[in-house]
Amino acid sequence: MTDQFLELLGRITPAGHSLSAAAQAHLDDLTKPRGSLGRLEEIAKKYVLATGALNPVPGKKKICCFAADHGVAAEGVSAYPAEVTPQMVYNMLGGGAAINVLTRHAGIELDVVDMGVNHDFPDMPGLVRRKVMHGSANMAAGPAMSEDEALRAVLAGADLAFAAHQDGFGLLGTGEMGIANTTPATALYSVFLDLPVEAITGRGTGIDDARLEHKKDVIRRSLDINSSRCSNPFGVLSSLGGCEIAAITGFILGAASCRVPVVADGFISSAGAVAALKLCPAVGDYLFFSHLSNEQGHRVVMEKLGARPILDLDLRLGEGTGAALAMQIIEAAVKVYNEMATFSSAGVSEKSDG
Amino acid sequence: MTDQFLELLGRITPAGHSLSAAAQAHLDDLTKPRGSLGRLEEIAKKYVLATGALNPVPGKKKICCFAADHGVAAEGVSAYPAEVTPQMVYNMLGGGAAINVLTRHAGIELDVVDMGVNHDFPDMPGLVRRKVMHGSANMAAGPAMSEDEALRAVLAGADLAFAAHQDGFGLLGTGEMGIANTTPATALYSVFLDLPVEAITGRGTGIDDARLEHKKDVIRRSLDINSSRCSNPFGVLSSLGGCEIAAITGFILGAASCRVPVVADGFISSAGAVAALKLCPAVGDYLFFSHLSNEQGHRVVMEKLGARPILDLDLRLGEGTGAALAMQIIEAAVKVYNEMATFSSAGVSEKSDG
Repeated sequence: MTDQFLELLGRITPAGHSLSAAAQAHLDDLTKPRGSLGRLEEIAKKYVLATGALNPVPGKKKICCFAADHGVAAEGVSAYPAEVTPQMVYNMLGGGAAINVLTRHAGIELDVVDMGVNHDFPDMPGLVRRKVMHGSANMAAGPAMSEDEALRAVLAGADLAFAAHQDGFGLLGTGEMGIANTTPATALYSVFLDLPVEAITGRGTGIDDARLEHKKDVIRRSLDINSSRCSNPFGVLSSLGGCEIAAITGFILGAASCRVPVVADGFISSAGAVAALKLCPAVGDYLFFSHLSNEQGHRVVMEKLGARPILDLDLRLGEGTGAALAMQIIEAAVKVYNEMATFSSAGVSEKSDG
Repeated sequence: MTDQFLELLGRITPAGHSLSAAAQAHLDDLTKPRGSLGRLEEIAKKYVLATGALNPVPGKKKICCFAADHGVAAEGVSAYPAEVTPQMVYNMLGGGAAINVLTRHAGIELDVVDMGVNHDFPDMPGLVRRKVMHGSANMAAGPAMSEDEALRAVLAGADLAFAAHQDGFGLLGTGEMGIANTTPATALYSVFLDLPVEAITGRGTGIDDARLEHKKDVIRRSLDINSSRCSNPFGVLSSLGGCEIAAITGFILGAASCRVPVVADGFISSAGAVAALKLCPAVGDYLFFSHLSNEQGHRVVMEKLGARPILDLDLRLGEGTGAALAMQIIEAAVKVYNEMATFSSAGVSEKSDG
């Protein structure tokens, strides 16, 4: 299995800039003042370089929403009880969650993936069963996952990206559901990006001041007890992550290895993305950050990464909701690149001077 | 005709807050932590209050892209020659402009409206002919339009909104095309919002430093020469506006009078929106600002208005491109409001405590 993982990392290469000049020349020949479509032009160019196709076809879009429970929920870090994780999975399978509405709106296929929910689901349409365990262990008392468990989750995520690529999906997105999962995400950021717990711990689904202080203590305790396991990125991800976060990491690595652009949702998904970046910096060439979460800390994280997410709508729900909206913008950018007329073809005069 | 205008203003009433509590209660009952969909929830609530329907149907979407020429172009304030206005109208009618790509992407019907292009178009599919004049006069030498010309443009815009409402469109957007039109837009902002020319004059389609200083001089000269006509909002709009800007003002007034939410595009469209707000502040209840333009000055204007546009993608093209993208977000917000499951219907546990 470790061989599989090393092979996965080995298949990821920087996108390269061989098409950069040609893509820019094409953008500059479209019937608009140069650069006037701003970030749409940047996005289109990144998409071209990532796919390696000068005339990329956006193709079908898919979001995988990874669900898992977290042992650390027992510490009382969330406003919601842990049973909400399977309840929300059923809600998604029934089509009533926000992510269902937004993927339908944007023409995105949705897979709900059980990576580690503490509940046994029957076979149901739309549910992908990749359960590694019935919820991670309590990271405040030891590692959340063994390295083997984390590896299985990462490879399951990567496999889903491979399958999506084979099925012709040209743009992928991440989402997640897991009560208490802002807690491991925050712990991951603290270690990976060397950020103080105080600056990045937020209210998640809506905890009060006292519980927020308690949450910070739990995170600090988790960092302490797992410090010896955090000497490398994989050790950090397994001891302080969770099954859905590790799957997101694998999904992003898998997408990058197939040169399929992939969109990270918000606070939790970005933690999976940061783990992927730490394991293999070249994934950055294939990765879009969809939106700036309203969860305190995401802004700090994005600034540390030098990333500017596409949207800023004060979302803090997860599930892939921000990814779904941003994927529409990315698709729009690629269509602009592909479908606009050029100055010569449209008979429009170019800029006269300065 | 003045009677028609007063009647139009008289039909616009504040949206009111009678549905506010019911709409908020519904949003809070959806299967997500309260407020976790951030601005999507604000947008949905504004849409509900604007339409007065507790279960609003988004319905069809339309953008009117209003085109006109500007006499002030003769002062050399733009990087492009004036003949680009009709060329770009033909490009739009041929489907090759950015707004064509983005309206197709977002499922928005597009009308291109000749309000005052200095060119005689033949009848063409997609072209709506409402020409008031062959380009406005040079505002640096006198009023851009007479009050009668401006009134005809405003009423033509309002009529298009009425017609769209009758045809079942539930969300409208504005766009424009007109070489040199950042110049009148900037002049309008300066007077309407009492902002210094220096702070809000930008490079438009891409002028150099020398031409930027010249553009500021032309705007200051226009303000001086028309100062006696600027004692009321209509005088400001006619002497410093343009046919497409006045039509946008009328389109927004017309939409508000029918309680149809309307989305202003970027720098130019927002000037038409500000004129509408000055003529009738209640239009604010029906008006969305789509995006923060990269044209210098738009940020200053939005801050002065206390408005936070939906998107921030560094666009500075106009045509309705930002409106098209924002209309997808507004539609998504309304769908979230209409289609998500409630806690009780989905059997999901509510928040346990703080």
